[in-house]
Amino acid sequence: MTRSWWGWGAAAEELSPSEVAELVARTAGMLPGHDFTDHAPPDPAALPVAPARLRPPATLAGLCSDDPVDRLSHARGKAFRDVVRNLLGQVGHVPDLVARPGTEQDVVDLLDWCSATATPVIPYGGGSSVVGGVEPRFDGAAISLDLGRLDRVLDIDPTSRTARIQAGIYGPALESHLRPHGLTLRHYPQSFGYSTLGGWLATRAGGHFATLYTHIDDLTESMRVVTPAGVSHSRRLPGSGAGPSPDRLFLGSEGILGVITEAWMRLQHRPVWQVTASITFDNFHRAVSATRAIAQAGLYPSNCRLLDAAEAFINAGVTVDGGLLLVAFESADHPVDTWLDRAVELATEHGGTVRARRSKDTTTEDAVAGGGPEPGEAWRSSFLRMPYQRDALARRAMIVETFETACTWDNFENIHEAVTAAARAVITRVCGAGVVTCRFTHVYPDGPAPYYGIYAGGRWGSTVAQWDEIKAAVSQAIIDNGGTITHHHAVGRDHRPAYDRQRPDPFAAALTAAKGALDPAGVLNPGVLITSDAVRT
Amino acid sequence: MTRSWWGWGAAAEELSPSEVAELVARTAGMLPGHDFTDHAPPDPAALPVAPARLRPPATLAGLCSDDPVDRLSHARGKAFRDVVRNLLGQVGHVPDLVARPGTEQDVVDLLDWCSATATPVIPYGGGSSVVGGVEPRFDGAAISLDLGRLDRVLDIDPTSRTARIQAGIYGPALESHLRPHGLTLRHYPQSFGYSTLGGWLATRAGGHFATLYTHIDDLTESMRVVTPAGVSHSRRLPGSGAGPSPDRLFLGSEGILGVITEAWMRLQHRPVWQVTASITFDNFHRAVSATRAIAQAGLYPSNCRLLDAAEAFINAGVTVDGGLLLVAFESADHPVDTWLDRAVELATEHGGTVRARRSKDTTTEDAVAGGGPEPGEAWRSSFLRMPYQRDALARRAMIVETFETACTWDNFENIHEAVTAAARAVITRVCGAGVVTCRFTHVYPDGPAPYYGIYAGGRWGSTVAQWDEIKAAVSQAIIDNGGTITHHHAVGRDHRPAYDRQRPDPFAAALTAAKGALDPAGVLNPGVLITSDAVRT
Repeated sequence: MTRSWWGWGAAAEELSPSEVAELVARTAGMLPGHDFTDHAPPDPAALPVAPARLRPPATLAGLCSDDPVDRLSHARGKAFRDVVRNLLGQVGHVPDLVARPGTEQDVVDLLDWCSATATPVIPYGGGSSVVGGVEPRFDGAAISLDLGRLDRVLDIDPTSRTARIQAGIYGPALESHLRPHGLTLRHYPQSFGYSTLGGWLATRAGGHFATLYTHIDDLTESMRVVTPAGVSHSRRLPGSGAGPSPDRLFLGSEGILGVITEAWMRLQHRPVWQVTASITFDNFHRAVSATRAIAQAGLYPSNCRLLDAAEAFINAGVTVDGGLLLVAFESADHPVDTWLDRAVELATEHGGTVRARRSKDTTTEDAVAGGGPEPGEAWRSSFLRMPYQRDALARRAMIVETFETACTWDNFENIHEAVTAAARAVITRVCGAGVVTCRFTHVYPDGPAPYYGIYAGGRWGSTVAQWDEIKAAVSQAIIDNGGTITHHHAVGRDHRPAYDRQRPDPFAAALTAAKGALDPAGVLNPGVLITSDAVRT
Repeated sequence: MTRSWWGWGAAAEELSPSEVAELVARTAGMLPGHDFTDHAPPDPAALPVAPARLRPPATLAGLCSDDPVDRLSHARGKAFRDVVRNLLGQVGHVPDLVARPGTEQDVVDLLDWCSATATPVIPYGGGSSVVGGVEPRFDGAAISLDLGRLDRVLDIDPTSRTARIQAGIYGPALESHLRPHGLTLRHYPQSFGYSTLGGWLATRAGGHFATLYTHIDDLTESMRVVTPAGVSHSRRLPGSGAGPSPDRLFLGSEGILGVITEAWMRLQHRPVWQVTASITFDNFHRAVSATRAIAQAGLYPSNCRLLDAAEAFINAGVTVDGGLLLVAFESADHPVDTWLDRAVELATEHGGTVRARRSKDTTTEDAVAGGGPEPGEAWRSSFLRMPYQRDALARRAMIVETFETACTWDNFENIHEAVTAAARAVITRVCGAGVVTCRFTHVYPDGPAPYYGIYAGGRWGSTVAQWDEIKAAVSQAIIDNGGTITHHHAVGRDHRPAYDRQRPDPFAAALTAAKGALDPAGVLNPGVLITSDAVRT
């Protein structure tokens, strides 16, 4: 499957002409005045990529590629602003080499060479960053360190339900290895097909579970990380109180402290019983209260996604005044109807109406339907197609992008109003018209993780600048109102101004010092999270 | 309530003469040859405490005490070896001053003074450390920084179910403040009555919940930490993916990076429904398998404590060949019988026999009993009296102490055999005879946290040295066999040799560098976790 060099995922998975037509018609309904002229991507081989400024030593030459299209496809992540710059043929900063280690020793040797030559090196998993995390946004040479050859499941421990897995494995390959054992990592970020275990760990990815095991952090038993100062290897432990957690320092370190080469991950048995309900509300505030009640009930649904009216209409095909709540429970051990019964009860106590309910017992392959069509399934298939839809619309001068945060429940109304007001004001100013949607991707007992979508008509050639204005305004609203600049998209380079306001200064000093100890030459992913002394960006 | 200067808890709570007689009779049954002569504690005012070598500046003098008994009672934690050294009147290292800040600014000022004068300062919560965490085990002057005056609940957010709480508050006072709001932190370490929130956070304490929310870490929403380099204040967030977690660097930092002054903590509604079952097994291995099945079923019992035969006999009064499993579920939202039904089913599938089952619904105050006496209740009351029993036996030349670890399920049999064999061999060598007990305090899907008890007859005057030999042998068995040197007792000074083998070297380098940035004078709790350059210990 050939990866798209310019846009999301695999070229073969792009929207079909009829899907595009349907999407454009639907979008035109929201933004009637917009010019939907298609702008096809350029031929990457024709783009003016400068020759590589680096030559690897002979011992490492076999691991390194200076092919221009290879380098171009490692130059950016897959944010809207990355895709549009690709469509416009804006080359920008391109790594000079793409290095593909085949062993951990290769990683050690590559880092040694980078440290000795003060060459910036950017760890690269699936390249699905939406925050500028893999982009060499600085002058001077750089190496993209693609972990894709470290793609094996090395060991499976069915007793502890864990597996030792190399960092460069992609989601689908990982699950294929685990399936014959009846096991699953069950970590499904939207990027699942085109992101890697190492990338999930380095960015604290958010996955399938809307409660409890939301971030990859909690699924991590131990890690191996190659740093220029040596290999860090934590013990396989289900829990420990021996000092600050070593793993928690590397989780979310986004490649600035070391290169994650493998991890022991906590698995689940594959679910047998699954029950879902779709519940509609006339009033968004009551829908939020219902969601909070479920999040605080100790039921731990696997899914608990609240879609506001705009999100429900656009991505689940449901017309509703207040919101659509998708709740699901699953288990490999026992039927979970009792759990869903109580969640539905809480939702109806808060004004919800059950639109559909499904039970699935994979031991009998019976799917028991009830109550009409299932909006959750429509939303789910839409969810996986969203990045492709975004690309189709980006080609047509639309601004389609998302941003996300998390906040405490008592602060949600305040931050939601501030963010949507800021978004609408800036969209009106820079685009004229647009739509802002909201959903909760994850919920916690003490607060939700709201996720916002923007659909606005742009001017071809200016959509990145327009988006950057929108992004700056909503980021400021998030930070001014107590949110986090990211719940699971990471910081990268794009979120630096907001992150610099968010993180405690003493923590930044500690992290900078830790980096100085582990990466004394300051070569690892410079510009991400903190500003390294060695390589000014 | 007057705290005991030499032993656990409050002097008034010590065992009564009849309790002592019963305990001695029961213990003599296990160790018939032992000499149970009582050795009463000395008068602390008569001990030769050297005059304080420090004088606080006038601005801080009002916060500082140089009273010898006050200093003596801050000189050690409450491990067996601490208690016995107190009983023997061994003064050892005593802090020169006890400082009691009343505000965060007082903490800032005290740390400024300590940094300017290169004076070691040891943060002190409830002083319940069992790992030498509060002991100035070095030459030269030292200050004990007692947070006990920072004991208020500053704010309660019932919507997000969180509260802003000062670090120096003790467990019972904290729960008293939350109870009128129908809320609870529900964090009950064995030390609950004599330990503080700040101590729990600094040491990653383990609490009431045997699954899911085992460590205080997961109950922490945000923290304020005074470091010599400034105050670190993380945002109130239910979840975040913005870089490595700042809180996770300070959780478990045991006072070497800063002084925790307050935290926003995640609360629960007070449980209404509670169901418990006591299940016996003829075979310990099958009991372990049953416990693993329950831990991996996604049921999340609040209690899931497996006691081996010796532990069940000594602390729950139950005679059983294999083990006693105490399982409980609780909820403020819904009856939990369905959950317990499935856990019991799993246990019986693995050979367990239900000995007793109880339901409690606090809405009606009905306690529904069934199946005989309740071993769980006997164990629970014993649990809270254990430290007092230890002290009574320590006075009678017994060696009574615990140690704990965690490991993956696949490794449990191996580590358990290695640890118990090492313990029995060393006990035979240094004591002649003794008993080793085991229980699981917490269980995870990927492994248990085994907790061991030692009961052996010592020679008065030598019991600390005897214990130190036992401890060295079992610590080596734990580290050699892949365990953690502590699941929830912390590292302190006693666990340093084992911890130094356990933690990854690059992590130690990062932590040392972080400490250098936050505590450039190296004054904070020197000797704990890492060896600071500034103050050699």
